[in-house]
Amino acid sequence: MKSVIPVELPQQSYDIAIASGGLEQLGNWLIGHGSQPLKLGKKILLVSSPPIFKHYGTQAITSLEQAGFTVAQCILPAGERYKTPASLQKIYDVALENRLERSSTILALGGGVIGDMAGFAAATWLRGINFVQVPTTLLAMVDASIGGKTGVNHPHGKNLIGAFHQPKLVLIDPQTLKTLPAREFRAGMAEVIKYGIIWDAELFEKLEQSQRLDQLRYVSDDLLQEILTRSCQAKAHVVSKDEKESGLRAILNYGHTIGHAVESETKYKIVNHGEAVAIGMVAAGQIAVALDMWEQASSDRQLALLEKTGLPTKLPGGLDIEAIAASLLTDKKVKDGRVRFILPTQIGTVTITDEVPADVIRQVLHAMQQT
Amino acid sequence: MKSVIPVELPQQSYDIAIASGGLEQLGNWLIGHGSQPLKLGKKILLVSSPPIFKHYGTQAITSLEQAGFTVAQCILPAGERYKTPASLQKIYDVALENRLERSSTILALGGGVIGDMAGFAAATWLRGINFVQVPTTLLAMVDASIGGKTGVNHPHGKNLIGAFHQPKLVLIDPQTLKTLPAREFRAGMAEVIKYGIIWDAELFEKLEQSQRLDQLRYVSDDLLQEILTRSCQAKAHVVSKDEKESGLRAILNYGHTIGHAVESETKYKIVNHGEAVAIGMVAAGQIAVALDMWEQASSDRQLALLEKTGLPTKLPGGLDIEAIAASLLTDKKVKDGRVRFILPTQIGTVTITDEVPADVIRQVLHAMQQT
Ligand SMILES: NC(=O)c1ccc[n+]([C@@H]2O[C@H](COP(=O)([O-])OP(=O)(O)OC[C@H]3O[C@@H](n4cnc5c(N)ncnc54)[C@H](O)[C@@H]3O)[C@@H](O)[C@H]2O)c1
Ligand SMILES: NC(=O)c1ccc[n+]([C@@H]2O[C@H](COP(=O)([O-])OP(=O)(O)OC[C@H]3O[C@@H](n4cnc5c(N)ncnc54)[C@H](O)[C@@H]3O)[C@@H](O)[C@H]2O)c1
Ligand SMILES: [Zn+2]
Ligand SMILES: [Zn+2]
Repeated sequence: MKSVIPVELPQQSYDIAIASGGLEQLGNWLIGHGSQPLKLGKKILLVSSPPIFKHYGTQAITSLEQAGFTVAQCILPAGERYKTPASLQKIYDVALENRLERSSTILALGGGVIGDMAGFAAATWLRGINFVQVPTTLLAMVDASIGGKTGVNHPHGKNLIGAFHQPKLVLIDPQTLKTLPAREFRAGMAEVIKYGIIWDAELFEKLEQSQRLDQLRYVSDDLLQEILTRSCQAKAHVVSKDEKESGLRAILNYGHTIGHAVESETKYKIVNHGEAVAIGMVAAGQIAVALDMWEQASSDRQLALLEKTGLPTKLPGGLDIEAIAASLLTDKKVKDGRVRFILPTQIGTVTITDEVPADVIRQVLHAMQQT
Repeated sequence: MKSVIPVELPQQSYDIAIASGGLEQLGNWLIGHGSQPLKLGKKILLVSSPPIFKHYGTQAITSLEQAGFTVAQCILPAGERYKTPASLQKIYDVALENRLERSSTILALGGGVIGDMAGFAAATWLRGINFVQVPTTLLAMVDASIGGKTGVNHPHGKNLIGAFHQPKLVLIDPQTLKTLPAREFRAGMAEVIKYGIIWDAELFEKLEQSQRLDQLRYVSDDLLQEILTRSCQAKAHVVSKDEKESGLRAILNYGHTIGHAVESETKYKIVNHGEAVAIGMVAAGQIAVALDMWEQASSDRQLALLEKTGLPTKLPGGLDIEAIAASLLTDKKVKDGRVRFILPTQIGTVTITDEVPADVIRQVLHAMQQT
């Protein structure tokens, strides 16, 4: 199975290829498929981390070398807390050691953490060299690897240092998901369900038809291909209409307004990003219902789908509602003291508003407390 | 006296304003002049270094505050060896402390070192915020502040980490040159003379007509305004035709091929950049003469102008010609083992070639040794 989704941008277009077994063909993909040779230079710097490299490193490097590339590698410790300027410096050091040139390529083999860092290194080495994404988490496949956002964290704030830098190719091999921990799989599913609500009602319905979604093994190969294709199409469409985040792109933040507040109030320790987004989507759905913008029945369907996916739909225990309300106001998305919400009006359609009364937010959050 | 040079780029255009006494009006310039309000947010982070801030800091901040801006500052130690990721981190820290937002502005008050670092911080903070250049060296005025190249050094190589990021405004106040050390002034003059050779024969002739050019005080206000205006026009024209350095921009490297080799072979200690470029221009001129591309008389005029400006025209004593020849081959501009040269064909016109025989290079360099 194989789908290729073109991402059309004013300055540079590229493809997202979703190909089962594609990792074995990585070298050939980088030479280019069909009518579009990628014209990358000989040198590739592969950036990855131990848990991923252990499973897929050899396969990737073998395929690249067979296709005639010279491969250097930079293996960085796994985890968000290593998404720092210090890790970046390590990539630069390897780039220098191997004399990476303007025509050289940095290739990210990993989740969003590796992709964001490797992408930022590619954006800034010699003021920008080629970049290729080979995402290995569901979240990176359907979200982080598409759209050109790259960056690292400042010790006191996430993603504060970064750049827009588009890849030359995103190659998704669904088979790499087999080794992904189940909780990470579910986190990615939260973003998939998000695309169903904000963009693609058919995707939402296909997910509803599946018996179980809480682990990859219950998902058929066909459905997985469909999930990946439709999700990537949704994100690709949105980001190509709005490359630098001035308008439409905001809808991708559905579930993220309250999601971010929950993440930061629990110090990024209790729930992961996808879980927080799931909670945020439930909240946004209920706010939309309270404002008479969405039907309760639709909100219930969203809730049921999240539950079937094994995602949380209640606030973590012991969380202070007032703290969340306060934290909402320091969110990046706040404009003039008004919180901007993305709210569904139908399954498949959302609207943006900054007119949500604070007491509606509080009410919804109270109803979402653990009992 | 005042000139405004528009720099037209596909994505974003901006002005270079050359205005004597402009620093006192900095705040008003940032609000915008005439038909083009700049629409910058309230917060400005001023980046400078002690020798410059001592002279111009208060004036800049007073003017900005009077115009209604809130000003934070980050004062970094002066000098190329502080153009590092560590200095960058200090800018990020102040940006975080002062909660710089997407609408905020980083303003560089200084030479090329400050401009490059502050520009890179602006390129990467929140994936890109507003940037304003207030260059205070002649080199930064006519070269570094124009064109959008920003970056820092890797401990083992210059300008390896960077990004393209265009300023919203370049404000040049010629009066700030009064405190610039004479040797730095002459270094900037080397780039000015370069523009005369590669682009603007009239500029070259005006320089020839001046009695002395080795110190600012011998240069009339009118001539200084003309030097700045014509140089900025030349650079602006070239970079706006070729924003990302694919073709035309190469002509700006006139004198830089051998210049870089001289700088690196003398470990950046004997000659400064402008002096190296002066030596490189003499060499390129003589290579062009040897290849029958340029008249000896024109080469002599270039030599005389460089000498009148107090710039070196011979190789530093004790330099090994073979080492320079070898170093040329590791220069960034080398393609397939052939060194690319920018060679004059007339005063005001250059051509690009990679067909210079190695023995011609050696011969010319030998003739340029100190006697
Ligand atoms: N650039 C963007 O537009 C964008 C969008 C969303 C998120 N992000 C960023 O993405 C990051 C989160 O990405 P993530 O969720 O992929 O987390 P991650 O990159 O930390 O990966 C999660 C864990 O799974 C491991 N792993 C990855 N692939 C595996 C595989 N196939 N088999 C076994 N283990 C595997 C990783 O080593 C890691 O421990 C955050 O830093 C976030 O800011 C960026
Ligand atoms: N971005 C570009 O396109 C570009 C082009 C050329 C050079 N550069 C970079 O520019 C840097 C060199 O810039 P530079 O020559 O301006 O050197 P610089 O910034 O180091 O300034 C030279 C010295 O003069 C001092 N100084 C600056 N203005 C002064 C003033 N008005 N009065 C008194 N002292 C003053 C500085 O503190 C410093 O000590 C290099 O790092 C180079 O890589 C960048
Ligand atoms: Zn998300
Ligand atoms: Zn130069």
